[in-house]
Amino acid sequence: MNLKSSSLFLLIFSFSSFSFAQSPLVNSDRLHGSLMKLATFGKNSQGGSDRVAFSEYDIEAREYVKNLMQEAGMDVSVDFAGNIIGKKAGANPDLKPIAFGSHIDEVPNGGDYDGPVGSMSAIEVVKTLGENNVMTQHPLEVIIFTNEEGGVVGSRALAGQLTEEALQVVTNVGFSQYEGIKKIGGNPDRIKEIKLNPGDLAAFLELHIEQGGNLDREGIDIGVVEGIVAIEWWEYTFKGFANHAGTTPMNMRKDPMLAAAQFILNVNETVKSVEGRQVGTVGKIQAFPGAGNVIPGEVKLNLEMRDLSSEKIWSIYEKIESQAKAIADEYGVTYEVKHIEVASKPALADESIRQVIKQNAEKLGLSTLSLPSGAGHDAQEMARIAPMGMIFIPSKNGISHSPQEFSSQEDIANGANVLVQTILSLDQKLK
Amino acid sequence: MNLKSSSLFLLIFSFSSFSFAQSPLVNSDRLHGSLMKLATFGKNSQGGSDRVAFSEYDIEAREYVKNLMQEAGMDVSVDFAGNIIGKKAGANPDLKPIAFGSHIDEVPNGGDYDGPVGSMSAIEVVKTLGENNVMTQHPLEVIIFTNEEGGVVGSRALAGQLTEEALQVVTNVGFSQYEGIKKIGGNPDRIKEIKLNPGDLAAFLELHIEQGGNLDREGIDIGVVEGIVAIEWWEYTFKGFANHAGTTPMNMRKDPMLAAAQFILNVNETVKSVEGRQVGTVGKIQAFPGAGNVIPGEVKLNLEMRDLSSEKIWSIYEKIESQAKAIADEYGVTYEVKHIEVASKPALADESIRQVIKQNAEKLGLSTLSLPSGAGHDAQEMARIAPMGMIFIPSKNGISHSPQEFSSQEDIANGANVLVQTILSLDQKLK
Repeated sequence: MNLKSSSLFLLIFSFSSFSFAQSPLVNSDRLHGSLMKLATFGKNSQGGSDRVAFSEYDIEAREYVKNLMQEAGMDVSVDFAGNIIGKKAGANPDLKPIAFGSHIDEVPNGGDYDGPVGSMSAIEVVKTLGENNVMTQHPLEVIIFTNEEGGVVGSRALAGQLTEEALQVVTNVGFSQYEGIKKIGGNPDRIKEIKLNPGDLAAFLELHIEQGGNLDREGIDIGVVEGIVAIEWWEYTFKGFANHAGTTPMNMRKDPMLAAAQFILNVNETVKSVEGRQVGTVGKIQAFPGAGNVIPGEVKLNLEMRDLSSEKIWSIYEKIESQAKAIADEYGVTYEVKHIEVASKPALADESIRQVIKQNAEKLGLSTLSLPSGAGHDAQEMARIAPMGMIFIPSKNGISHSPQEFSSQEDIANGANVLVQTILSLDQKLK
Repeated sequence: MNLKSSSLFLLIFSFSSFSFAQSPLVNSDRLHGSLMKLATFGKNSQGGSDRVAFSEYDIEAREYVKNLMQEAGMDVSVDFAGNIIGKKAGANPDLKPIAFGSHIDEVPNGGDYDGPVGSMSAIEVVKTLGENNVMTQHPLEVIIFTNEEGGVVGSRALAGQLTEEALQVVTNVGFSQYEGIKKIGGNPDRIKEIKLNPGDLAAFLELHIEQGGNLDREGIDIGVVEGIVAIEWWEYTFKGFANHAGTTPMNMRKDPMLAAAQFILNVNETVKSVEGRQVGTVGKIQAFPGAGNVIPGEVKLNLEMRDLSSEKIWSIYEKIESQAKAIADEYGVTYEVKHIEVASKPALADESIRQVIKQNAEKLGLSTLSLPSGAGHDAQEMARIAPMGMIFIPSKNGISHSPQEFSSQEDIANGANVLVQTILSLDQKLK
């Protein structure tokens, strides 16, 4: 930092401090209004949202979002991946932007809160700062990411993680990511050019609903996200001998269904036997040939485990794996296990940003809980290139990706206020 | 019986007794030759048989069978259901026929022994009797039934059990039973006319491979079938709450997969806890939505039980059902159970025919085992209208419906010899 920018920094610092003391708060009604307006794009007869990425609903909603951004004083552009980026200059041109945002696309028949809460709050934050005549030192960037639900596509592109294969994947609207990105104004052939490098952003923040029941159950206002968990998948195939269910005596069977059943119960017990927030799930099972009158020859199932610590996942897996061997032997069957690459690395939140989030929530009189995010988010990709922080608000009964998804207006405003205060604190703290 | 026929009976009785003392034996090589010739119709590259009912292979094989029957001295016809019937007159025109036979159709990629052993043996028996100048009192009828594998179609027609709906079912060759029956020379519109009534046949006998491993494992030559088991199906649906596998803590889950797993293990234990030959199987399971990253909202599975006694099946079911309740409670889920009509009544073999089979096997120096048939057969339908007996021969390792299906030439000849002797004994015994 040269002398000139340093002076400027001091000037801005004083100004910011003053603003911070005023604690600019978002306009809760306006925020809720824009959220409810966004919800009209793609609302279906079941009360759910069909605003799937690249759909006509998504395209219309994006226009609404761009207008909102412009009204909030941002310069709006769409990058080669279709991400909508709203820029607001900072007082110090030498500083890198503080970026924040989320996504507005939904799963088919999804809810109104998932990504929209963080997206609308991000725009409201910039609007609020403008109304309060707060100019930050750092430039601010609101990012509305492309197709989060279909594989965190926009954030992957920014983190340089989007592969050619991923672009060819056919999305929920029936055409490829490649086609979809073109439809929303991106240029999939030039996506590599938007890759950010570590240091290109001062920080990245995302506000999101919890999508779990911890905050709601415990009556906590704000979740301080420790990180986004690592995910590991394994496919187990138990193999016995397919035979006639009528003619094969019970004591002559090699029935992999029994081994699979015992395995499923053991997974549950083993995952729960260790202290912590790790989860383990068998969500998918198939018997072959899968007829009521045939003892299966094979049963395939999927084991998923998630935790902030990859080491912990693998240490629990070792226990499960040794039990699988014993179970197969007990039922006279064999098994194979295949590890499947999903999102094997955890994306940890920046320790100092976590503290800033927690302190600001407490200053606002809000209760906090530190917790991992069991779901994936754009923030996990952004953590590859910038110090990352995530703020959770309660989602009722932990329901998400459903028309029943709900967060209260108060909780949403709380989250947006923590976001604005966190941005202001980081603006002072980060160089 | 009037005096005239009574005298005739005595005459025939003496003649038959003489023949029986000679114990006419089948020509093992010839029988095996015709079985191997039959196997050429529909042999596929995996060594299996694709002689599915109504296929070109089936149609060609039926011509071969009709010729064999004619060579054995039978009058051959095809009834309205497409059953091939070979008739040989008896000495006493007042007596009802003793019928015997099986089927030549196979499951896709099936084996060479299943129905063919009983079919070729039936023809060989008539040929053998002719060569030995044995004329029975009763007329003899060899029946090669239509589409056994696709729902015992030919025997159901004879027993008056074939519904209009069943005729519309599309078979493995891609057209309906109705079309198939027309292709093989039947007349599906007149099927009702061939219905037999109790008393129309003196007896029905079927020789078949065991399709289970009991005889092979215990080194027994002949199985004396006690009856064809009753089959009961239930569909269980365990219902919890579908949720995000990453964000839902282990202690907040209502996971029906766990209840289903516990249920499957309990079924196995409960079925085995009762003395007897009953079997219970879960061969089919599906989780909804069935994704690796979603705790299932529902898990559906199929429970099948079989036994010669319907009462026993239902008493075991009562135990399983009360456990299901406890299991659902334990895992915080609910469940529904639906009984599905399959083949709910057992088809018991005639007690005196069973004794005749056993005695004749022993006279031939063959070891016997009384056992239920866990698989369905044409004999189960024929038992509705005639005293029924079934003879089993060993199938290697209990494998059936597979290219690996195998019975030895010696075992096949043993079965055919027990069949011919049983026919001769019944010919004397039955009025």
